[in-house]
Amino acid sequence: MSTEPEWNRKDLVGIEDLSREELEMIYAKAEELKPTLKRSQKKQPILRGYTVVNLFMEPSTRTRLAFEIAATRLSADVITVSGNASSLVKGESLRDTAMNIQALNADIIIMRHSAAGSARYLSRCIDIPVINAGDGAHEHPTQALLDTFTLREKLGKDLRGVKVTILGDILFSRVARSNIWALRKLGAEVTLAGPSTLVPKQFEHFGVTVIHDLREALRDADAVMLLRIQHERQSSTHFPSLGEYTSMFGLNEKRANWLKPGAIIMHPGPINRGVELDSVLADSKRSVILEQVTNGIAVRMAVLYLCAHYAAKHRLA
Amino acid sequence: MSTEPEWNRKDLVGIEDLSREELEMIYAKAEELKPTLKRSQKKQPILRGYTVVNLFMEPSTRTRLAFEIAATRLSADVITVSGNASSLVKGESLRDTAMNIQALNADIIIMRHSAAGSARYLSRCIDIPVINAGDGAHEHPTQALLDTFTLREKLGKDLRGVKVTILGDILFSRVARSNIWALRKLGAEVTLAGPSTLVPKQFEHFGVTVIHDLREALRDADAVMLLRIQHERQSSTHFPSLGEYTSMFGLNEKRANWLKPGAIIMHPGPINRGVELDSVLADSKRSVILEQVTNGIAVRMAVLYLCAHYAAKHRLA
Amino acid sequence: MSTEPEWNRKDLVGIEDLSREELEMIYAKAEELKPTLKRSQKKQPILRGYTVVNLFMEPSTRTRLAFEIAATRLSADVITVSGNASSLVKGESLRDTAMNIQALNADIIIMRHSAAGSARYLSRCIDIPVINAGDGAHEHPTQALLDTFTLREKLGKDLRGVKVTILGDILFSRVARSNIWALRKLGAEVTLAGPSTLVPKQFEHFGVTVIHDLREALRDADAVMLLRIQHERQSSTHFPSLGEYTSMFGLNEKRANWLKPGAIIMHPGPINRGVELDSVLADSKRSVILEQVTNGIAVRMAVLYLCAHYAAKHRLA
Repeated sequence: MSTEPEWNRKDLVGIEDLSREELEMIYAKAEELKPTLKRSQKKQPILRGYTVVNLFMEPSTRTRLAFEIAATRLSADVITVSGNASSLVKGESLRDTAMNIQALNADIIIMRHSAAGSARYLSRCIDIPVINAGDGAHEHPTQALLDTFTLREKLGKDLRGVKVTILGDILFSRVARSNIWALRKLGAEVTLAGPSTLVPKQFEHFGVTVIHDLREALRDADAVMLLRIQHERQSSTHFPSLGEYTSMFGLNEKRANWLKPGAIIMHPGPINRGVELDSVLADSKRSVILEQVTNGIAVRMAVLYLCAHYAAKHRLA
Repeated sequence: MSTEPEWNRKDLVGIEDLSREELEMIYAKAEELKPTLKRSQKKQPILRGYTVVNLFMEPSTRTRLAFEIAATRLSADVITVSGNASSLVKGESLRDTAMNIQALNADIIIMRHSAAGSARYLSRCIDIPVINAGDGAHEHPTQALLDTFTLREKLGKDLRGVKVTILGDILFSRVARSNIWALRKLGAEVTLAGPSTLVPKQFEHFGVTVIHDLREALRDADAVMLLRIQHERQSSTHFPSLGEYTSMFGLNEKRANWLKPGAIIMHPGPINRGVELDSVLADSKRSVILEQVTNGIAVRMAVLYLCAHYAAKHRLA
Repeated sequence: MSTEPEWNRKDLVGIEDLSREELEMIYAKAEELKPTLKRSQKKQPILRGYTVVNLFMEPSTRTRLAFEIAATRLSADVITVSGNASSLVKGESLRDTAMNIQALNADIIIMRHSAAGSARYLSRCIDIPVINAGDGAHEHPTQALLDTFTLREKLGKDLRGVKVTILGDILFSRVARSNIWALRKLGAEVTLAGPSTLVPKQFEHFGVTVIHDLREALRDADAVMLLRIQHERQSSTHFPSLGEYTSMFGLNEKRANWLKPGAIIMHPGPINRGVELDSVLADSKRSVILEQVTNGIAVRMAVLYLCAHYAAKHRLA
């Protein structure tokens, strides 16, 4: 009797749904696949003959590229649909769009959409796997997977008791939300930091600590995850403005001294150098930002593999 | 001596050009290829090494995707050129654009263009196959092929005497035009229905019946093909407006009772639910809309196969 | 001991950097690869498993397509990033964008950018090969390679003493600049021709002759390379305007009689028929314009091959 746990999901909608065991399955598969990304390695034939549709109803180059490369490394054919000006979408419901893509013989849909909950809705409409690449302010599960995968590489596979500070524009951040779920499930201690307008105390209901004093938030952290500050903050109607944020919460060399010696710095990109993160720090030994990018391919390959495998098995059964 | 008929065309420009025998060749090849679309099937190596250029000078996600998947399932490499903002096109004649694409080592060009006749013109300029993916108000031959292929699957391979009602905005519809040609060649009886502003009596010159009374148009139909009502009709300068159209000719559950029990409902997509077609009907057992989508891959594979095969043979001869 | 010269560059930034021997290595490899472009030929497996990213921060369909096809013919996977509206790029430095693409497991970056010097800068930021597809008014090296490759096919491999006239809007032309470097290194004699506002005498510092009289510029030429006249010249603030240029320097049938019998006509495309070049001439036997397009695939395959080969060797060492 095999004791290996089995992946029992067609879709990846959000981290909130996953058990710690499921997270570990993704990490294990990503670890297995990551070495195939070395330059001289051949593509894995795992998804040969599969058609993966990248349905991006909200613009994103970075995440789209990462998914496209992940699927390509598994030998799938990838077709990108940018929903903005798309006649597929005009006057058509999201469900009809997805039903059509399924009828076009697609095997997997990766979707980014501005509406929270859209990925779950879609996963119920269609039989093929749906991978959430970001749905409004709700979740961005593969970002949290690559972040926690990187933490495990850097700080050890058991994240229980590890202290992670998430710093920045947290209020409407799907990246923060997915990371809070993932880190809590893995037993890490999470601190949210930033100005009170961006990090309200109410977040403590999620089992995290909210701190508005940067020094205090950094002092005990094993890792600090920065979030991108939005450029809209250049307008004076936002408080804090970009400049105000930088002067109060921007991570610079002086403030980095408040961190413990081995603490690492993470960022989902793209970095606003000199705004939320000083350029010298972004390129310093503390920074694991580019490793996060590479790990993003590995975890996305793992997710595609697991969901495709589940779908194939249940179609045959 | 082989008695198998042979495909003798480099291009697919329009249904008007084709004989009934040629239509049957496409259906036969599509039938042969359709089972390769089942999910666990490998791609067919038929166009391995071919470069197919999707030249879309008019926006279209749906048709572009279908062609892209069809070519990919035959193992071709597909490159999409969207002509709108394209420097390939700016200040350059269509002929020069196509000559250039041919010189770039492309093997097949699939083109959508706003000008009626552009596909035929192109097919004469260049040596490689040209597949018309819609040229102005002229023809959309692969749409008619997938529609009639679906009719044959549902109502039997011999369409002689079968009664098909095309309902909607027919006046400038290339879909209607191509379907009229195809259905007439196959011996079906065609009724065009809709308000007289959209369906003028003059269409009877094509050997079809024009009926402006919906009940009468539906009563004997074995299949009703809906056409999409354009959103421009939201403006008050169009008669009928969207709302007026729906109240007079929108197909809803009550009106569907006017149909014979086994009659099927078709739509080229994207559906305006609640406008030309009621949502419940779109998802009902009468509806074959999603099967049309899948059949669109099969017939496009067939057309690509036949034209590529012809080109290869005549290059070697 | 092998006496074969070896390619020792990770990148192709500009023709200015290359020795005559390096140019010859590219031509030799392009000659070897060109026959694989015949239609029935399989793709070369040379870059199988490679991910090539086409980073086009300035719009271009023609060059992008040519690179995409070249990489595809070598079996690479090609991903296109159009930088304009790209969130990869928004508020992010070019270096960060490139570092990210490298971290995403890309093997080669092909870049077009509006800033002169951007390709060289990028080549120093990252470890993977960078191929310049045009950087501002600086260089467009693969265009010059395909132009000189075509000249060698038509006029013989030794271009020493061959007379080439470049005619048109030369002042800010990266095509002219790269061709001047290439032709001078190969020993050809270069004449620049056009109105003095577009072809100032100062260009003679590059070791070329500047002539403002068209007849004199054409009389001894073995080849005349036309440059595209920009459509901005339709505005009256430019001198010469499109119309003025055509009447003074447009190459038409009468003026073509000033050429020697065997002289050839070249153009990088897209042609403004009737502006810088008469339509009849563009399609005449003198014109080698479409052969230039095909040769563009062959030289780009050669460049991709050589730089990828260098990178692979130095990674293993």
